[in-house]
Amino acid sequence: MKPDLTTLKQQLAEIADLKAAIAVLEWDQQTFLPSGSEKGRARQIAALSRHLHRAATASELGKTIESLEKYPPEPDTIGFALLRSARRQYDRWVRVPETLAAELSATTAEAYTDWLRAREQRNFQILVPRLEKIVDLKRQYAALFAPEERLYDALLDDYEPGQSAAELDMVFGELRSRLPALIDAIIAAQKSGSDFSDRTFPATAQMQFSRDLVTAMGFDFQHGRLDLTEHPFTTDFGLDDVRITTHIDEHDFLSCVLSCVHECGHALYSLGMDPELNRTPLADGASLGFHESQSRLWENQVARSGAFWRAFLPHLHRYFPGQLADVSARDFLAAINRVQRSEIRIESDEVTYNCHILLRYDIERDLIHGRIHCSDLPELWNEKMREYLHITPANDTRGVLQDVHWPTGAFGYFPTYTIGNLLAAQLWELAHRELPGLDDFIAAGTLSPLREWLRDRVHRHGARYLPGELRQRLFGDARLQTEPFLRYLSERYLPEA
Amino acid sequence: MKPDLTTLKQQLAEIADLKAAIAVLEWDQQTFLPSGSEKGRARQIAALSRHLHRAATASELGKTIESLEKYPPEPDTIGFALLRSARRQYDRWVRVPETLAAELSATTAEAYTDWLRAREQRNFQILVPRLEKIVDLKRQYAALFAPEERLYDALLDDYEPGQSAAELDMVFGELRSRLPALIDAIIAAQKSGSDFSDRTFPATAQMQFSRDLVTAMGFDFQHGRLDLTEHPFTTDFGLDDVRITTHIDEHDFLSCVLSCVHECGHALYSLGMDPELNRTPLADGASLGFHESQSRLWENQVARSGAFWRAFLPHLHRYFPGQLADVSARDFLAAINRVQRSEIRIESDEVTYNCHILLRYDIERDLIHGRIHCSDLPELWNEKMREYLHITPANDTRGVLQDVHWPTGAFGYFPTYTIGNLLAAQLWELAHRELPGLDDFIAAGTLSPLREWLRDRVHRHGARYLPGELRQRLFGDARLQTEPFLRYLSERYLPEA
Repeated sequence: MKPDLTTLKQQLAEIADLKAAIAVLEWDQQTFLPSGSEKGRARQIAALSRHLHRAATASELGKTIESLEKYPPEPDTIGFALLRSARRQYDRWVRVPETLAAELSATTAEAYTDWLRAREQRNFQILVPRLEKIVDLKRQYAALFAPEERLYDALLDDYEPGQSAAELDMVFGELRSRLPALIDAIIAAQKSGSDFSDRTFPATAQMQFSRDLVTAMGFDFQHGRLDLTEHPFTTDFGLDDVRITTHIDEHDFLSCVLSCVHECGHALYSLGMDPELNRTPLADGASLGFHESQSRLWENQVARSGAFWRAFLPHLHRYFPGQLADVSARDFLAAINRVQRSEIRIESDEVTYNCHILLRYDIERDLIHGRIHCSDLPELWNEKMREYLHITPANDTRGVLQDVHWPTGAFGYFPTYTIGNLLAAQLWELAHRELPGLDDFIAAGTLSPLREWLRDRVHRHGARYLPGELRQRLFGDARLQTEPFLRYLSERYLPEA
Repeated sequence: MKPDLTTLKQQLAEIADLKAAIAVLEWDQQTFLPSGSEKGRARQIAALSRHLHRAATASELGKTIESLEKYPPEPDTIGFALLRSARRQYDRWVRVPETLAAELSATTAEAYTDWLRAREQRNFQILVPRLEKIVDLKRQYAALFAPEERLYDALLDDYEPGQSAAELDMVFGELRSRLPALIDAIIAAQKSGSDFSDRTFPATAQMQFSRDLVTAMGFDFQHGRLDLTEHPFTTDFGLDDVRITTHIDEHDFLSCVLSCVHECGHALYSLGMDPELNRTPLADGASLGFHESQSRLWENQVARSGAFWRAFLPHLHRYFPGQLADVSARDFLAAINRVQRSEIRIESDEVTYNCHILLRYDIERDLIHGRIHCSDLPELWNEKMREYLHITPANDTRGVLQDVHWPTGAFGYFPTYTIGNLLAAQLWELAHRELPGLDDFIAAGTLSPLREWLRDRVHRHGARYLPGELRQRLFGDARLQTEPFLRYLSERYLPEA
């Protein structure tokens, strides 16, 4: 007898609908909310979050899961994945005592304010007391799911199910030993290019060109929108409503354009999922790393390539004929692929980017395992910046205070950016093997073969497979790989070598 | 000892936050939702509505109300009004059996589809079976709150607390006996004016001028937005976030402009309420009639007046210099105050408008009291249209099928439009008595005295007073009055008489 998943699906759909409603309120908060309406919105989100908590921890849901586990669905069916995911999420909800959850949420809210103040005063020590408390609370949280020696794994697991720090130590170690020399070589080889930041690129033309690009990528405006915000993000309210955002800098049109491509990469993941997964916890990426692989593959491998701009540069010239009249295709490509050591993670190029992650990983792993103290962070940070990037940040604000992750309690999040970069390179190699003529398609502005290939290989599965399982399916090996990524960097940035 | 309202306020705030969240989802649905995302949105709203139902009918809330009623707050305090309103709303929620509520909601959803089809085929009979069922369900609903002979009062009460059909019979009777002759006289006296519907008024200039107008009215963009939609409406997510909407017809800029003024009239009501009322059921208009009095006072009494356009016509010319070059101020005023009998309620002017309401009132009151049958409606409708407006609708779609109210179960709603018109005229007279030089202020483009007066007299109280109580406070008489309205029409449209 096939197990009857009807009740489970109903209970999960209720949770999914509440999450979607919260996402609508948050999306509006980041795009259209009047400046004086923050307080009311925070209360509405808090109210819905209480209802979500109640639904997600309902004992009826626990009973449904338990009774299905007695005669579980066949492995490798959607039902199997659904039940596994339901169990995983239910345990995450119910094992965390409400007092701990409340304390975490209150402390991170206060720490966020401290962080803003610390940035203003360029003084990390302002943040230290509350950050210490957050580290302590996150350790308590992690201890609910893992023994002392694997506390950090438990945090990773929230973003990258099944990922171990042991594997990251190894993989990141490979990057640590090989990236610095590669960066040196790339910077030495690179020619000086154009800079068009002294020119003005009107907002409406930036938006129109960006819309054209995401349309070419296959973004479905029947099931999504593109709006403006301060810090671009993608969100979805179920698989039939996926919204991307961007920002405009009139002197830096690439920021808007590449943000759109990046966010559209995320959006295509959701838009490409099997509709059967809608309103279940499987209507999600396999992990944050896999999600980031999609955005970065489109942003870096595709939208910084010569092939891509062979198709779209003439179109860009139509929007900005004057501003780009004196810029050759070669100079344009050199400009958007400039490699430069930078203090700031989010301003850095794809070559130096992972150094920023390596140092954050070292620090947050050691923090969680109690090997270092929060007050040591600025010194450690600057030391590692010198080691990996030969840079000493001008001050804490441009150093250890630059990211919001730690004050908001997101320990274990940073590594997913690098995992995304590694996966993007692996997928890019695989796509080239399985899609002969891929570069020619891209050079002709035809992006659908790549999108459909990604949909088939990655998107449609949603969170049906754990990241390791999906890697096994895709690459025949569940382990993270650095070779394809390093190869990709060498081939793109050192073609003559 | 003062009664402790803390628990009651918390329970009501929870309900208010859930309502606000639903309003956000509905606002997005009407403004920005992608066309293919309707299904998901409907499910999210349904999920939140279930949580709202649970919170609004919680037995804890009932107990809080009951225990406070034993030692109630002093009359004429906010606490008193709060408890009264909480009781009223709680009873409305709990007395309605879930089966009845579910049947009503399912039937009106189906009837809406029937209504669309009936309009397409211009055949009211398509709607009859489900409309009969809705009438029956609304009678069952009303019977929970009133005896057989006052069933319609119970429906009125949802929109206009305490309003009796007996009073409406009398008041509407006065209009019925005096309006037709007044309409004749006004139409006979009116001179032919300009018509600029053959000209094009670009959308962005329409929006900019409209924004200027609502800014002059005092709309606070720190706590609100103006967006585009199909059918303009105002909504709020608490008193710190009030959103208005409008639509654009490039050949009819007045439609956008006057919509904005109308919706801004609603918005100023919410924005002007005592912040203490926020997140309580008192953060609402005293009734739909009072709400409509605010939108109509601004739209009709103010924004169709000579004084108003003395201030704003020069500004309008700046946006549309070519289009309005040959239009004199006198012709412009004549155009925006043209009186003309029309088949369609929402296209009709403020003079003939109430005839449309009178006939709907006659019909819906008799329907609810079982004196007529749904199948008779087209004939009755056309008969009354001839009687009140000397018009026979071209077909059902331009007649009895023109409004969505009945198929959605909103019986008792139509009279509130006329109540709004009557109240607007009363308030307009009172404002002139209490604000010497009001017309001069308006003619100078200074709208704040009127707005602040309305805030003090009406807005700040929210729903603290029942509509009759508020009329007593304002006018020294709780009863509805037709004289000020008829006087207003005569003075504006027959100034030489």
